[in-house]
Amino acid sequence: MATSATTIEKAGKTARDAGIMLSAKSEDQRNRALQAIADALDQSRSEIIAANEKDIEKGKSDNLSDPLLKRLRFDDKKIDGIIKGISELIHLPDPLGKTLKATELDINLNLYQVTTSIGVIGVIFESRPDAFVQISTLCLKSGNAVMLKGGKEALLTNRKLFEIINNASQNAGMPEGWIYNLESRENVNAILDLDDYIDLIIPRGSNAFVRYIMDHTRIPVMGHSDGICHVYIDADADLKKAIDISLDAKTQYVSVCNAMETLLIHRSVAPSILPELKAAFDKAGVRLIGDENVRAIISADTATETDWKTEYLDYVLSVKIVNDLNEAIDHINLFGSGHTDAIITENMDNAGRFCSLVDSADVFVNCSTRFADGYRYGFGAEVGISTSKLHARGPVGLDGLVSYKYILIGDGQIVADYADSQKQFTHRLIDNKYPL
Amino acid sequence: MATSATTIEKAGKTARDAGIMLSAKSEDQRNRALQAIADALDQSRSEIIAANEKDIEKGKSDNLSDPLLKRLRFDDKKIDGIIKGISELIHLPDPLGKTLKATELDINLNLYQVTTSIGVIGVIFESRPDAFVQISTLCLKSGNAVMLKGGKEALLTNRKLFEIINNASQNAGMPEGWIYNLESRENVNAILDLDDYIDLIIPRGSNAFVRYIMDHTRIPVMGHSDGICHVYIDADADLKKAIDISLDAKTQYVSVCNAMETLLIHRSVAPSILPELKAAFDKAGVRLIGDENVRAIISADTATETDWKTEYLDYVLSVKIVNDLNEAIDHINLFGSGHTDAIITENMDNAGRFCSLVDSADVFVNCSTRFADGYRYGFGAEVGISTSKLHARGPVGLDGLVSYKYILIGDGQIVADYADSQKQFTHRLIDNKYPL
Repeated sequence: MATSATTIEKAGKTARDAGIMLSAKSEDQRNRALQAIADALDQSRSEIIAANEKDIEKGKSDNLSDPLLKRLRFDDKKIDGIIKGISELIHLPDPLGKTLKATELDINLNLYQVTTSIGVIGVIFESRPDAFVQISTLCLKSGNAVMLKGGKEALLTNRKLFEIINNASQNAGMPEGWIYNLESRENVNAILDLDDYIDLIIPRGSNAFVRYIMDHTRIPVMGHSDGICHVYIDADADLKKAIDISLDAKTQYVSVCNAMETLLIHRSVAPSILPELKAAFDKAGVRLIGDENVRAIISADTATETDWKTEYLDYVLSVKIVNDLNEAIDHINLFGSGHTDAIITENMDNAGRFCSLVDSADVFVNCSTRFADGYRYGFGAEVGISTSKLHARGPVGLDGLVSYKYILIGDGQIVADYADSQKQFTHRLIDNKYPL
Repeated sequence: MATSATTIEKAGKTARDAGIMLSAKSEDQRNRALQAIADALDQSRSEIIAANEKDIEKGKSDNLSDPLLKRLRFDDKKIDGIIKGISELIHLPDPLGKTLKATELDINLNLYQVTTSIGVIGVIFESRPDAFVQISTLCLKSGNAVMLKGGKEALLTNRKLFEIINNASQNAGMPEGWIYNLESRENVNAILDLDDYIDLIIPRGSNAFVRYIMDHTRIPVMGHSDGICHVYIDADADLKKAIDISLDAKTQYVSVCNAMETLLIHRSVAPSILPELKAAFDKAGVRLIGDENVRAIISADTATETDWKTEYLDYVLSVKIVNDLNEAIDHINLFGSGHTDAIITENMDNAGRFCSLVDSADVFVNCSTRFADGYRYGFGAEVGISTSKLHARGPVGLDGLVSYKYILIGDGQIVADYADSQKQFTHRLIDNKYPL
């Protein structure tokens, strides 16, 4: 059911106004609305599950794959999970109205840098109905209006979830139009033009999809393209840690962006560790692709330059021997995607150099790349992972959904007095919180 | 002298690598390089002034306007100013390596959010040679490589400044290629394609120019389009402050983005204040354009809706009478540009509501809009003012030129243990600073 571009534009304008009203709601009001949503979801379980059953039936007749159907399924256990998630979100500190910095510019002229919501956020995401609830409640908590486009396979489930969230939040005093549900691909193209109303687009999906969005909008886009993550086993590595971490980083969940795709090994430890690594990866069903130095020690398929740039998202691993720490760093900065890279070493000078020079969002010492995740970082939930270096980098939770404004409170000061040197700025950091 | 796109691309790649090396230089190394630049500029005064004289001569024969020639002139006094500016920059706190947040995820598994440089910044700016020095030294202090394109009128001056800064910084140990001077308009188009190497574009110039840049690059752009700033005189305003501030906001410097363009007046105070305001503005040579309610009290030209959206940058002011605070806020959010807006009131509830609901980068109470400026805010210097809500908003100084990375330091932890619930996250905020 495509909606006209004019309707979408109107919804964008309404969302902009609603976002301003929403951001002015108190922490308590926003938390009470979140609780009302959780209660409504709890009371509407049978309706949600019935809508989801229809999506599942359609998915089956459309021959969706089993993993996709599994992600699409929204049962009592998943509803328990999202209600628990909302409860945790309610208890997270308010991201709005925090005084980041206060400066006395002159006597009775105080500048406050205060966190605010961003405004309107457009989110385009995959066919997991739980994502619909997570994203909309994160936006409500952070005072942002949101326009959501979920996967088409979850059409009826998302429509029902929208209806429940929209009604419950409005009954709890949230402004009309703070949440808008988009139902067709054409609607996605319509929101890409709304740079007057939408402040940020978060696309979740394939690299090609994220690139497409970036190429077709003037609105800032937050997301990640590739996840080409590395583990580097240093000359001073603890070999047991090296094997455990490599195995976890590759095989704990192969199809995710923070899984390892390339293993780099210092030449001094390669002969001793490679046979043991091969045995472990063979057992886990991982196919190894190696450069010629690797293949001089173990059997592996032949790596070409393409392998260093490939995100396999599968039980496949490219392996390369490097001469030293610097070669490992250079390889990662050249072929990596700025997502997550780890060093295994007991030498903290080497660890420090690696952390300083590897230009990635997440840089790890002696632990698995799979830890790069909003939940594991303690953010409660995440809207996505950013490999951009602007605004938010790495896993993005509530803190990535806020902006700030500068509020200057005076008692009649004019610039002419300072331009004439009749008055001087004091520029003194103060401890005050924003008082209004 | 146009340089080929291939040469520019090579320079971009070199800048990316140089930026990584630069960001790893210690605070002391970067500050010593800044001092070396200041010394070299001091010792090269006659060469700089000679190059600038040639630009001025060409400008005169090209019939540049007097204000442009004035901005272009780079004399001993301006050189004194930029040397003083570098000295102040050296004494500002290091923006790099600050631990923004530290979290214990589990015993011996600590997450540090640490500030880093952004990478490579492209700056396109107007014909003020002092801007060349300010921008490049701000980038050096914040560990960013920079590609600069100054106004063509300052070609020879900028070339000389580049030569001095490049040599002095490299002699002081900064990496080759951290600064690159672009000399033609074609080169600007070439850098817009370098989204693999350049992380941020900062365009300074007309609205049309900033829009052009945004439409022609996938690289994030930081800048401001319009500066349609408002002053709202509330029912509870102190009328003396209202007049002083309105006059300063409009006339202290009319051609800048933070000057007032529209004055809003609560209807209850309009009859008493408008005649006095008119007298003051008449004396200052400001032409008034008013809605019909204004024109019922004083004589003024007739305002149309276009006036509410116009950035005059001149001795012209549009004036409107509003029924209440909410109408003022709605007018500002509808017609303003999210730059700087002020309320004049003694009622702190009204001030609080205004600050909460006006969706602008800078929201002021009882002081002039002209205070919205990096120098006046105590940032030392600014690279520009942002009306975007992503990354940096309002005046942007050193803090807006940094990103962060997450560094996770463990001793062998793998995700499988937490997925199996064999281990539990502690997620405890800690006071530690990043230790490596």
